[in-house]
Amino acid sequence: MKYSNLFGKTMKDVPHDITSASHKLLYKAGYIRDSSNGRYYFLPLGLKVHQKIQKIIKEEMDSAGYQEIVTPIFHPIGLWKETGRTDSVGFELLKVRDRNNTDFVLGGTAEEMLVELVRKFQISYKDMPFGLYQFSTKFRDELRSRGGLLRMKEFVMKDAYSFNISEEDFKDEYSKMQKTYKKIFDRLGLEAKMVDADNGYIGGEYCHEFIVESDVGESQFLESSDGKYLAHQDIAKFSRGESTLEAELPLKESNSTESPLSKFIKGQVFKDEKGVFYAVYVRGDLEVNTVKLAHLLGVYDISEVSDGELSQLGFTHERVSPFDTKGIKSVGDISLKFVKNGYTYSKDVRMYSINVNYPRDFHLNMIGDIALVPKGALSEDGKKLLIKNGIEVGHIFQLGFHYSSRMSGAQFVNEKGKFLPFYMGCYGIGIARTLATVVEVHHDENGIIWPDSIAPFHVSLVALNINDKSVKKVSDTLYNRLSDLGIEVLYDDRDESAGDKLADADLIGNPVRIVVSPRTIKDGDCVEYKRRDSNNIEILQLDNVIDRI
Amino acid sequence: MKYSNLFGKTMKDVPHDITSASHKLLYKAGYIRDSSNGRYYFLPLGLKVHQKIQKIIKEEMDSAGYQEIVTPIFHPIGLWKETGRTDSVGFELLKVRDRNNTDFVLGGTAEEMLVELVRKFQISYKDMPFGLYQFSTKFRDELRSRGGLLRMKEFVMKDAYSFNISEEDFKDEYSKMQKTYKKIFDRLGLEAKMVDADNGYIGGEYCHEFIVESDVGESQFLESSDGKYLAHQDIAKFSRGESTLEAELPLKESNSTESPLSKFIKGQVFKDEKGVFYAVYVRGDLEVNTVKLAHLLGVYDISEVSDGELSQLGFTHERVSPFDTKGIKSVGDISLKFVKNGYTYSKDVRMYSINVNYPRDFHLNMIGDIALVPKGALSEDGKKLLIKNGIEVGHIFQLGFHYSSRMSGAQFVNEKGKFLPFYMGCYGIGIARTLATVVEVHHDENGIIWPDSIAPFHVSLVALNINDKSVKKVSDTLYNRLSDLGIEVLYDDRDESAGDKLADADLIGNPVRIVVSPRTIKDGDCVEYKRRDSNNIEILQLDNVIDRI
Repeated sequence: MKYSNLFGKTMKDVPHDITSASHKLLYKAGYIRDSSNGRYYFLPLGLKVHQKIQKIIKEEMDSAGYQEIVTPIFHPIGLWKETGRTDSVGFELLKVRDRNNTDFVLGGTAEEMLVELVRKFQISYKDMPFGLYQFSTKFRDELRSRGGLLRMKEFVMKDAYSFNISEEDFKDEYSKMQKTYKKIFDRLGLEAKMVDADNGYIGGEYCHEFIVESDVGESQFLESSDGKYLAHQDIAKFSRGESTLEAELPLKESNSTESPLSKFIKGQVFKDEKGVFYAVYVRGDLEVNTVKLAHLLGVYDISEVSDGELSQLGFTHERVSPFDTKGIKSVGDISLKFVKNGYTYSKDVRMYSINVNYPRDFHLNMIGDIALVPKGALSEDGKKLLIKNGIEVGHIFQLGFHYSSRMSGAQFVNEKGKFLPFYMGCYGIGIARTLATVVEVHHDENGIIWPDSIAPFHVSLVALNINDKSVKKVSDTLYNRLSDLGIEVLYDDRDESAGDKLADADLIGNPVRIVVSPRTIKDGDCVEYKRRDSNNIEILQLDNVIDRI
Repeated sequence: MKYSNLFGKTMKDVPHDITSASHKLLYKAGYIRDSSNGRYYFLPLGLKVHQKIQKIIKEEMDSAGYQEIVTPIFHPIGLWKETGRTDSVGFELLKVRDRNNTDFVLGGTAEEMLVELVRKFQISYKDMPFGLYQFSTKFRDELRSRGGLLRMKEFVMKDAYSFNISEEDFKDEYSKMQKTYKKIFDRLGLEAKMVDADNGYIGGEYCHEFIVESDVGESQFLESSDGKYLAHQDIAKFSRGESTLEAELPLKESNSTESPLSKFIKGQVFKDEKGVFYAVYVRGDLEVNTVKLAHLLGVYDISEVSDGELSQLGFTHERVSPFDTKGIKSVGDISLKFVKNGYTYSKDVRMYSINVNYPRDFHLNMIGDIALVPKGALSEDGKKLLIKNGIEVGHIFQLGFHYSSRMSGAQFVNEKGKFLPFYMGCYGIGIARTLATVVEVHHDENGIIWPDSIAPFHVSLVALNINDKSVKKVSDTLYNRLSDLGIEVLYDDRDESAGDKLADADLIGNPVRIVVSPRTIKDGDCVEYKRRDSNNIEILQLDNVIDRI
């Protein structure tokens, strides 16, 4: 393709609200343009990469034996009611009512639709196991999206669903899909770590995120020093320390204390999606993880309360004492068991209680693991835990009978003619986020450095001084010869400065750059060959450069 | 692919509400499944065909120099307000409000989005002309969909948009796209006629539908006996006959008349989308075309009124006399000019007026071409017009300055640095409807007969008596050899009866059927070769059959 004809040229400047490297580079280089918040146009360059990523995923899914289908984007809301997800998904769920007053959910994920499809057929054990997948536009009604393609409200996702006859069978399926995912991300040039994760509103008992380490990532995970324990912050287990043999001293009141935070019993108030309040206590050196808290409570969403709400409940100066929960349910982190002779706010708002010991001195309605893993924590088996940030590029879920038990007829017939629910798994990859992740990981100060597998073009052919007839002739020849060989070439045939054209080639980031200039052709038809990921420049004869490519 | 592994097997029966041949066959053969009304799942077989159609369209669009992009499905409603289309599209427009209370239109067509994208760039005459296209899911809020994939509420459309500097340039573009469309439909095995058509809510001055003749089609068009005039019923012109030299007789009243319908001045009442009423008159042998009427009136939608509304307006017994329009606006068809000494309802509800002549005897607020072309009509140049039905598989539009004049900044810079609006065209093909049209045109009583270009598989390999080891061996060998050659084979390896397997092969409709049976292999490794579109069966050696394919 001639660059002069390409729609979507490079730009020197980006709007100031664009902050992530991938967003900035994809914008500047002409891969994407912003539409409304969280929604993007894919320009020809961007769509080419998007399609190449899809193609790799398709190849690997096909080779794992999965079959491609596609479901409507409008999901009948009745299906989501069958599984109770209209409640659990909350505000991210987009609903539409058509002119017949029929309600639909705009698909963010398609478990119900797949079960609905499969139950239309009389599935027997002979048909099992099988797997289906689709590429389709998904919708998430995020409050605010950031980071360009890293978190979108509308994006193409590959979502796959497996149907097995038993948990045992599923274990093989799950491990096959783990390998398939590793292979996909390898081919995309991404080193993705498989991390134990939280399943959000998907359901099921366990799941794994594939996370690519990156500072801009929103997925925080813990990795043990030996690399064996990998878990998302929202489910990571960690040691609260050793029990001490220190004797429990008598509880007393004091108007001051100089004990460290690790002796403090800290109380905060949270509320769930229904407005129910909870007094929540953790050791003073820890913070509450609201996802863990929601799981412990069996609710969907936990948020902090305002100062106004606190006062209304009767708490003074944000002093949430375990001795006076104002009648709301109390919940504690297991760290409280390791606080010997601690201190906390007294019931008397002017005083501290000291030598406080749980459960001797106060009662909790529930206790469990509800704390964020802090810096420097150890795993339960004593390994150092590193806190890392990364981008979630894939997520695989055991669903078990979560959907097939809630939806009637989600069954297969076994050898004995008996109807049994099928055992499910699901497997997602967001294409655009994966694309952005590649850019986050593979770029330098001059632009993108695409892996060969998904670059929009393999070669950037840069003709310097295109008005020089010999330069044009050599460039045209090379362009035609490479194109005839089926090599994708982006031919910069514009009458622009050498500086601009070389900068654009770097910015766009095709793997190979070939420069034709009066200098390279003055002693025979030579060109400059350089890979984007190397600083090595070679002068090669035309024939040699074609061989090289 | 082994048929035993394929998701979505054939069915013997279809639900009774499925009526069109394509819907019936695509359902029975396992290509699609119904979701909610007007929305479908594409099963592996169906998606394969869908993708092959897309690929052919992509190749032809690319070769016409168009570049693929993709826009978000959620269109900011502000863009549609800029062009006034939130009003004109009416109820078919699906709107969504997100949790930030931002309103969106779910794209049914993307003119505004494309103009919005293009105006983000500083386009100069050097960039022109250019064309962009996308494949994306489109939404139409139809009241009720019928005919399976022939009219859907959600479907993938290829929509392309061209940007030219002038009307003159555009004429070349438009004729290039006409050729591109012809080529696309040729490759898909469709004989599509290019018919002058109505542009609905798209805007612009002229457009053409590509229509494949079929009784199930909802597009009615007229074709002159010499094939030169092709026009959609909604815009077709026809002769109202000759003026006669008959003298105008004196108007009088009578309580009966025996004149023919062609002398009758027939009145009806219609209303527009705002509830404004119109008394509409046509010659008694003609009917009103509401699309033509809407165009003449400059309104969006015309519908019939109820008997109740008629009485409320003061009309008795549906007698809408031109002598008493009860104060509402009156509109007539040009046929009234050809009624000499006609008759109509008198103002007196018991009487007829006879010897009625327009404009001598009554007044009309407007007169124009508002009639349906009747059977047996002649074109304006005297050719016989045939009324035909067909399926609209493509639609191309001159948009001119319709969008670029309504949207600010929809401009390019010319040689002199002057900003000028660009001249646009747009070009659509619905993939699923095209797929269904192929089935409507290419099938017999046993099933689908796919053209080679888009068949899901090239070969149906049918092993009869698969439990016979020799049959299995020959079949496996052939399957592997063909697959290695990159030929797509659907291998029916099930242990089912010969009748069922042969019927399924016919139903699914791959172009070539190869049968391996104890009979074919008894004297050497032979197989039965038959094309789906022929009755000729040949017995061929394995090597020969591979060559043949």
